[in-house]
Amino acid sequence: MNEEEAQKITSLLNFRHEENTIIAVIQDYKSKEILMVGNMNKEALFKTLTTGYLHFWSLSKKNLWLKGETSGNFQIIEEFKVDCDADAVLFKVRSLGPICHTGSYTCFYRSYDELINSKS
Amino acid sequence: MNEEEAQKITSLLNFRHEENTIIAVIQDYKSKEILMVGNMNKEALFKTLTTGYLHFWSLSKKNLWLKGETSGNFQIIEEFKVDCDADAVLFKVRSLGPICHTGSYTCFYRSYDELINSKS
Repeated sequence: MNEEEAQKITSLLNFRHEENTIIAVIQDYKSKEILMVGNMNKEALFKTLTTGYLHFWSLSKKNLWLKGETSGNFQIIEEFKVDCDADAVLFKVRSLGPICHTGSYTCFYRSYDELINSKS
Repeated sequence: MNEEEAQKITSLLNFRHEENTIIAVIQDYKSKEILMVGNMNKEALFKTLTTGYLHFWSLSKKNLWLKGETSGNFQIIEEFKVDCDADAVLFKVRSLGPICHTGSYTCFYRSYDELINSKS
């Protein structure tokens, strides 16, 4: 997507979540599994749209980061949707490797049984 | 899920998002389409887990709400997952009707083309 288009889309969204972000849901384009959820500020969304690679705003580290920068597991955008009130977006991606920092294919790997049987 | 189990799961999660919430991603159990994203505080999650119906905390209205309470379009939980850092959950649901307040099957219905061609 060119810069003009990315700027227009960024201007239409409502960055109303913490630290002026939107919620970004990441879904595997092929399997349709949910891979992760993150926050994007304007800059992260703009970079995501113009480069085709996922960028996020880290609420804990207070910095912009490119998904896959250290692991090499880049996530390439195939499809992009915006929700009804424009404060959440959906990216369908082609995954070049596990998205989760634990090495798991999806961040949503903890089941009801695992939680119930955990010790803490 | 009984109250004891729901209490345990609620206690394991990290309600670190705005107004002490977690992010809840809602996915159609059958089609695997993403339907919506919302926030849940402890009470909303507890009620969701114990009743089997989606409850959210509304950041704009500052109240707890049961999805489908006015529309009748209840969303029944079929599967539940927690993400790696325990601040987001995934509910796979059986949908008794359109989830979006616009009447759309999914809240993520706005495409790139629609946004680029919009007037504002």
